Amino acid sequence: MSILSHIAHVPLFEGLPQVQVEDLAMIVTDQVFRKGESIFSEGEEGNGFYVVITGRVKIFKLSSEGKEQILHFFGPGEPFGEVPVFAGQQFPANAEALEQSRVFFFPRKSFVDLIKKNPSLALNMLAVLSKRLRRFAALVDDLSLKEVPGRLAAYLLYLSDQNKGVKDLELNITKAQLASLLGTIPETLSRILAKLGSQGLIETDGRRIKILKKEALQDLAESGGRL
Amino acid sequence: MSILSHIAHVPLFEGLPQVQVEDLAMIVTDQVFRKGESIFSEGEEGNGFYVVITGRVKIFKLSSEGKEQILHFFGPGEPFGEVPVFAGQQFPANAEALEQSRVFFFPRKSFVDLIKKNPSLALNMLAVLSKRLRRFAALVDDLSLKEVPGRLAAYLLYLSDQNKGVKDLELNITKAQLASLLGTIPETLSRILAKLGSQGLIETDGRRIKILKKEALQDLAESGGRL
Repeated sequence: MSILSHIAHVPLFEGLPQVQVEDLAMIVTDQVFRKGESIFSEGEEGNGFYVVITGRVKIFKLSSEGKEQILHFFGPGEPFGEVPVFAGQQFPANAEALEQSRVFFFPRKSFVDLIKKNPSLALNMLAVLSKRLRRFAALVDDLSLKEVPGRLAAYLLYLSDQNKGVKDLELNITKAQLASLLGTIPETLSRILAKLGSQGLIETDGRRIKILKKEALQDLAESGGRL
Repeated sequence: MSILSHIAHVPLFEGLPQVQVEDLAMIVTDQVFRKGESIFSEGEEGNGFYVVITGRVKIFKLSSEGKEQILHFFGPGEPFGEVPVFAGQQFPANAEALEQSRVFFFPRKSFVDLIKKNPSLALNMLAVLSKRLRRFAALVDDLSLKEVPGRLAAYLLYLSDQNKGVKDLELNITKAQLASLLGTIPETLSRILAKLGSQGLIETDGRRIKILKKEALQDLAESGGRL
């Protein structure tokens, strides 16, 4: 595959017009790292971001005793270092090739110059990322709807039990904390609460949740089931 | 809350420097839509994008018989219309307020002018979106690792059965298709395949997958369990 078609296949650049793929190809550096070779180190100036073409890269931190804590593995098509580089910050961790790896490097300065010359590159990349976020959010919803309603029902029943069986509950954590407790995101939790509300199982008003149909919640908690 | 603090709390703009939040506040239009009021229609020029501040918005298409197909609901903090607007396209669907809703509108032209003047706004927004994508990807992994390995094991055993019990399988679909079949994304599937490989259950080489430990795969398929 040519450099152009490698770039066009990176999800971060998915669907960019050909002329912008060509612009990116003008600034890219094609690099190969040997197994175990360091790509960047924590604290270094983020002077560009990377995309794995072949091979695998690990991102890790070192404790003060030199113990390695692995944060991520990245494989073909995945960018790394782009969050700090876009934000103009230093690299917050180390990157090292796990096996011989081919990596494309995009220097920050040239990338900023491209955007100044042609803001539509940035707009298109924002569109690409927004679209991927939508897809992920839908997937999280889909995966969560199988389990989170059951866990939520169990949690509400637990709260009620803890409070002598009252049905008028007041959450003492935020919805964001509750979402995280249930292993999902606030947006999905809101959708589940709305659905339980429209089915008449509960009634919500801010942090107050009123249990309307205790038996239905028990069924949901026991089946662990999908709404 | 002031317009500035509403903008600063929108996830799309999370962590932008104060001066860029102020820039955004200069171009925003604060709008209120009544219940049932149309916000934009399919095919209209995408001359700006929206963020829900309060209320709820539905995005829908109309079939040729006028039947409504709902694509999304958006609530507080969620942007809508931004994918086509960033990409410079027409709106691909209709938007309507489900209840009285306060919505911030960011005109495309003023937004592009901001980016031309100061590319770091675009870079920071790219950083925000990349970071959210990371968070979602981790969540998808987390949710998928509970079920996808079991489904993958069941699928591989099924393929083997279909082929008179051979252990050397050749997928006749792409990995992206297989991921979608298993209800996950290619990146998560790759991680699961790598993990099964490192545990010695299978060996993969492109589309070829060799079953090494059939019994262990059967256990995984039956438990539906986490790796």
